[in-house]
Amino acid sequence: MFQSFEAETTPETGPPRLAALRAQMAEDGLDAFLVPRADAHQGEHVAPCDARLAWLTGFTGSAGLAAVTAEAAGVFVDGRYRVQVKAQVADVFTPVDWPATQPGPWLAQRLAEGARVGFDPWLHTPAEIARLEAALTPAGIAAVPVANPLDAVWADRPDPPSGRAVAYPDDLAGATAAEKRRRIGAILAEAGQAAAVLTQPDSICWLLNIRGSDLPRFPVLQGFAIVDAGGAVRLFADPAKLADLADHLGPDVAVLPPASFEAAMVSLAGPVRVDRSTAPVAVAQALTSAGVEIAWGDDPCLLPKAAKTAAEIAATAEAHLRDGAAMVAFLAWLDGAAAEAAAGKRVTETDVVRALEGARRATNALKDISFDTIAGSGPNGAIVHYRVTEETDRALAEGDLLLVDSGGQYLDGTTDITRTVAVGTPSAEERACFTRVLRGMIAVSRLRWPRGLAGRDLDAVARAPLWMAGQDYDHGTGHGVGVYLGVHEGPQRLSRISEVALEPGMILSNEPGYYREGEFGIRIENLVAVIPAPPLDTADPGREMLAFRTLTWVPIDRRLIDVDALSSDERAWIDSYHAEVAARLADRVSGAVADWLARATAPL
Amino acid sequence: MFQSFEAETTPETGPPRLAALRAQMAEDGLDAFLVPRADAHQGEHVAPCDARLAWLTGFTGSAGLAAVTAEAAGVFVDGRYRVQVKAQVADVFTPVDWPATQPGPWLAQRLAEGARVGFDPWLHTPAEIARLEAALTPAGIAAVPVANPLDAVWADRPDPPSGRAVAYPDDLAGATAAEKRRRIGAILAEAGQAAAVLTQPDSICWLLNIRGSDLPRFPVLQGFAIVDAGGAVRLFADPAKLADLADHLGPDVAVLPPASFEAAMVSLAGPVRVDRSTAPVAVAQALTSAGVEIAWGDDPCLLPKAAKTAAEIAATAEAHLRDGAAMVAFLAWLDGAAAEAAAGKRVTETDVVRALEGARRATNALKDISFDTIAGSGPNGAIVHYRVTEETDRALAEGDLLLVDSGGQYLDGTTDITRTVAVGTPSAEERACFTRVLRGMIAVSRLRWPRGLAGRDLDAVARAPLWMAGQDYDHGTGHGVGVYLGVHEGPQRLSRISEVALEPGMILSNEPGYYREGEFGIRIENLVAVIPAPPLDTADPGREMLAFRTLTWVPIDRRLIDVDALSSDERAWIDSYHAEVAARLADRVSGAVADWLARATAPL
Repeated sequence: MFQSFEAETTPETGPPRLAALRAQMAEDGLDAFLVPRADAHQGEHVAPCDARLAWLTGFTGSAGLAAVTAEAAGVFVDGRYRVQVKAQVADVFTPVDWPATQPGPWLAQRLAEGARVGFDPWLHTPAEIARLEAALTPAGIAAVPVANPLDAVWADRPDPPSGRAVAYPDDLAGATAAEKRRRIGAILAEAGQAAAVLTQPDSICWLLNIRGSDLPRFPVLQGFAIVDAGGAVRLFADPAKLADLADHLGPDVAVLPPASFEAAMVSLAGPVRVDRSTAPVAVAQALTSAGVEIAWGDDPCLLPKAAKTAAEIAATAEAHLRDGAAMVAFLAWLDGAAAEAAAGKRVTETDVVRALEGARRATNALKDISFDTIAGSGPNGAIVHYRVTEETDRALAEGDLLLVDSGGQYLDGTTDITRTVAVGTPSAEERACFTRVLRGMIAVSRLRWPRGLAGRDLDAVARAPLWMAGQDYDHGTGHGVGVYLGVHEGPQRLSRISEVALEPGMILSNEPGYYREGEFGIRIENLVAVIPAPPLDTADPGREMLAFRTLTWVPIDRRLIDVDALSSDERAWIDSYHAEVAARLADRVSGAVADWLARATAPL
Repeated sequence: MFQSFEAETTPETGPPRLAALRAQMAEDGLDAFLVPRADAHQGEHVAPCDARLAWLTGFTGSAGLAAVTAEAAGVFVDGRYRVQVKAQVADVFTPVDWPATQPGPWLAQRLAEGARVGFDPWLHTPAEIARLEAALTPAGIAAVPVANPLDAVWADRPDPPSGRAVAYPDDLAGATAAEKRRRIGAILAEAGQAAAVLTQPDSICWLLNIRGSDLPRFPVLQGFAIVDAGGAVRLFADPAKLADLADHLGPDVAVLPPASFEAAMVSLAGPVRVDRSTAPVAVAQALTSAGVEIAWGDDPCLLPKAAKTAAEIAATAEAHLRDGAAMVAFLAWLDGAAAEAAAGKRVTETDVVRALEGARRATNALKDISFDTIAGSGPNGAIVHYRVTEETDRALAEGDLLLVDSGGQYLDGTTDITRTVAVGTPSAEERACFTRVLRGMIAVSRLRWPRGLAGRDLDAVARAPLWMAGQDYDHGTGHGVGVYLGVHEGPQRLSRISEVALEPGMILSNEPGYYREGEFGIRIENLVAVIPAPPLDTADPGREMLAFRTLTWVPIDRRLIDVDALSSDERAWIDSYHAEVAARLADRVSGAVADWLARATAPL
C-alpha cells in the first residue's frame, strides 16, 4: 500500500522542539527564524530529511511556513488548511491566515528596530526574500542568511534519500537527452546567456531522460544542474545514485557531488539564467558574490518540457487506458459496495481507497500513486483537499455522493482522474448541480479556440453553467500534468491566474467542481492534451485554432445526469464519450466488470 | 445632416505643406519632427485646429502619426487604415505598418548619431516619449521638446472652437458637481496626494456636471483642470465659453485662461497625481521643473465616472427607448427600401445613412450622432470601420447583408447599436454565421459572473459559438460607453486586453461579429449595464454575482436566425427580448411602423 491512513505527526513533539530551536537561535544571535515547508527545490513534495515544518510544528500541509521569535511562533497556512492546522499543532504555535497576513509585516510588528531575522538561503527564493525585506527594512530590521539553526538541533534527522536513478527510455520520451540538451543550449545561446542554473528536479530529469526515487509520488532525482549554451550539463547529485547511468548520460554530462555546486557557480562566466521564483537565494548569492552576471528568466526547460512530444502523448494515452481499465474495475466493485452500504453494511472511505489502489496495483505496472487518493463521502466531499485518516474515516451511507480523485504513476505516464458517484439514490438538487459541473467539463472538452490564448482566457466556459445558477467553485479549472513526472506541472493552467499561452502537446486537467459545505462535493476530471484543431468546413482560412484531445476514458455516473438539462450537443458528447470508453477498454476488461462497463456506457 | 459623405482632404495639398514644414524644421535645427493625430487631450476626436496630421498628410483616420525627416515622411497607421491611407496621401509620404513598426526604431534607422528629433510636448504622453527615447538614446539621438514647427507654417489654421458650455442637470447626473468634487478630493486625500491634474475633457465635464460643444460627436468642453484634495477645482478653459455658468460652478470652481495653466502647475504643492497614459509630457515637465512631486496614477475620475449612478442609468434607458423607436422607424423604412432594391431600384448606403439620421432627428431630441454611421452592404460590411463616401457608395442588391452601426447623442444618454439585416433572401451560410454571432451575443446578455472579474475573464463566452466552427472576429467584444459623453469611454471593456474589474453601473457594448472579406459582414450590438445579479433559488449564499441589464430594445432580424441552431434557452431569450421590445416601444410607434414592429417581434 502506497497510501497510509496514519497521522504522520503528533502535536506533543512541538513544544520541546520549539524550545530547542529558540535556544539555538539565541546562541546564533537571531531574534527570529523562518521555517518554510519548502526544500531547496521549492516543489510540492519534500523528503523526510527536509520536512522541517512538520518536524517542528506537526503541521503536514503541502504549503506554509513558521516564523519563530523568542515569544511567538506563527504557523502561516492558507485557506485549505485552516481546520487541519488546529488539530495538528500544539498551542505554543499560533495559526496565521496566509497569504492575507505575510511573515514580513507579522515579524515587523513583533520585533524591535535592530532585530535580526534569520533565514536559510537554500530554502527561500529571491522573490520571497524581496517581499520579506520590503516589510522589514523600513522597520530597521535585518533579514540575514544563516546556517540553519533548526538543522543544528534536529538530532534524529533522517538521512537524505538514497534510491538509484534510472534511465528513461528514449522511445517514451520522444527525444534523446542529447537532443534536449542541444535544444536548451540553443535557447540560452539565442538569449545571449552562457548558462542556466537548474534547481527543479523535474526539469533536470526531463532534460537528461532520467527518473529517480527520492520522493514519494514524484519520480525524480533531487539535485541541481548547470547547463551551458553548448548543451553540456554538470549534474550535482549523489554520484552513488547515478552509478549505473554513465553510459546513458554520456561524456557531455558530468556528475559531481552536491558539495561542489557552489564552487562551480562562482567559476561561471555570465550571464547565467536563474529563475527568480524557484531558485534558492543561495544561488543568486553565490553568483553575485563572484561577480557573475545573473539573467533573471524562467527555467529554460519549463516550456519545452510542458509541450509533450508525440511519443510522450502516445505513451501517456496508453497509460491512461491501462489506468482507465483499473478505474473501471474499481468502479464496478464500488457500485456493489455502495449498494451494500446503502443497505446498511459498513463500507468506509479507507475501504474505497484500498480497493482503488488494489485495482491499480493489479495492472502490475503501477510505480506509485500520483498523490494520496481523495475519497470524500457526503460532507467530506466538500473538503477540497480531503485526505482520509483512521480518525476521519466515514462509512458510506444511502444518499451520499462519493468524490474520488486519484491517479497512478506509470513508466509511460501520470494519470489524474476524478469521478463522483451516487451511493443509493441521489437527490434532485445533487443531480442538478452535478449536471452543471458536467456541462462545464463538456464545454472545455469540446472547445476550440484561436492559438495564443492562455488558461485565463478560457476558464469562463467551464464555469458559465454554474454561474448561470449563481454557483461557482473556488479552485482552478485545471493544472498542467507531466509524463511520469509531477501530477502538478507548470507553467500552463486552466485558471484565471494563468497567462501562459496553451501550446500543442501540453497536458492539462479539466476538473470543474461544486461544493456545498457540510453536505456534498462534486468534481469531474479528465486529462486532456492540446492539439491543433481538426479541420472543419466552416473554419476561417488562415486562422490557427487549437482544441483538446481527451486522454481519460472512464464512465461518468449516468445516474447523476439530468438529461433534460443537457443541450443536444452535450448529450451527444456524453453518448459519444461513453461509446468510445466502451470501445477503447473492450479488450482490457472481462466478466462482471465488462458487464458493468456495458451498463455504465449505455446511451443516455 | 451631421454626417457628411465628402472626402475631407485631398492628397494634393500634402507635398507643399511637407516642404514648408521641412524648411521650418531646418530653421529650428531639427533632423526630424513627429506629427501625431492626437491633440493635448489624447482623445478620439480633435478640433479642426488640432487636425495636424490630416492637414499635413491628408490622412483622416482616428489614430496614427507622421515622422518627418529631411528625406522621409512615414505615416504610421494601424490595420484598420492600410487601404485608406494609400488613397489619402501623396507619394511623398510612406505608409508604415503600425504598431509593428514604431517611430523610435524607424527614426533610429534613418538618422545619424547626434541627430535631434523634435516633438511637441503637449501632444505626447510620458509613456509614449519613454518608448521613443528607449529606441533613440542607444543610437545617440536626442528627443527634444520644441515649439511646434508645423503650427508655425500652418497659415490658414482654423480658430479654436468657441461654442458655449452648458450645465448638465443634476437630476440626470444623479449627483451634484459639489458631491463629485468632494468625492474626488477624498480619493486624493486617501492616497496622500495634494491634487490631481485632469487633462481628459470628459473627466472634467463629468466632474463639474457640464457639457460643451468643442468637438463633433463628443459633447465636451476642451480644457485642463486641477482638482485638490479639498475638492476645489481650477478649470483652465476659455472663460467666454463658461460665461453663463458662474452660478452653476459655484465659488469652489475657478475658471482661468488656458495660458495660466502652466503657472498654476509650477506653484502646486505635491504630490500631484498625473495619468502617465493620457497627460501631456508638458504637464510632467512643468511639475518636475518646479520640483513638484508627481504621483503617477490613473485619472481619479475614471472609475467614478465609469460606474454610472442610478439616475444616469434611468436617463440613458429612456434615451435608448427613444432611440429604439427611431431605429424601428428606420428599420421599417429599410425593409421597404431593401425590397425595392432587391427588385432593382437604386437604394445606396448613403440613402440608408440619411434615412437613419432623419429618423433620429425626428425625435426632436437628437444633439448629435454618436459617431459617423457605418452602413456597409455586401462586401463593404466586412470593412470593420467602414465610413461611406460618395466615392465608395454602393447600391444594395438582392442577397446582400447590410450592417448598420450607429448611435445618437441625447441630453439623457449616448446610444450605440448595430443591426445586420437581410436584403432579399440570405444564404444558408450567412444565416449560419449570423446565428453563431447571435448566440455569442445572447450568452453575454444572459451571463452571470462572480464580482471581481474583468472583461478578459468573460470574453470567451461571446466567441465560443464561432470558435466551435473555426471562426472568430478580430476586434473586442465590447467597449465602455458614457452618458451624453464619449461613445467610447474607459476603462472597462469586454476584451482580452482589459483587466479592469466590471462594477455595477458600468455601461458596455455587447457586439460580437463575423466578417468574410469581399463577401459580407455581420455584427449585432446592444448596450448593457452591469447590475447585481437578481436573486436565484439555486445561488450560493454569500457569493456576490453580477449580471447585465439590457439597455437597447430594437428587433433582431428574424430572417437571419437559424432557429434549429439555437438551444431552447437561446430561443426563449430571443422571444422574450422581442416581446419586451414590442411592449416597451408600443407607445412610441404607430401606423405602418407599429405593424412592422409587430411582425418583427413575433415569436420565432
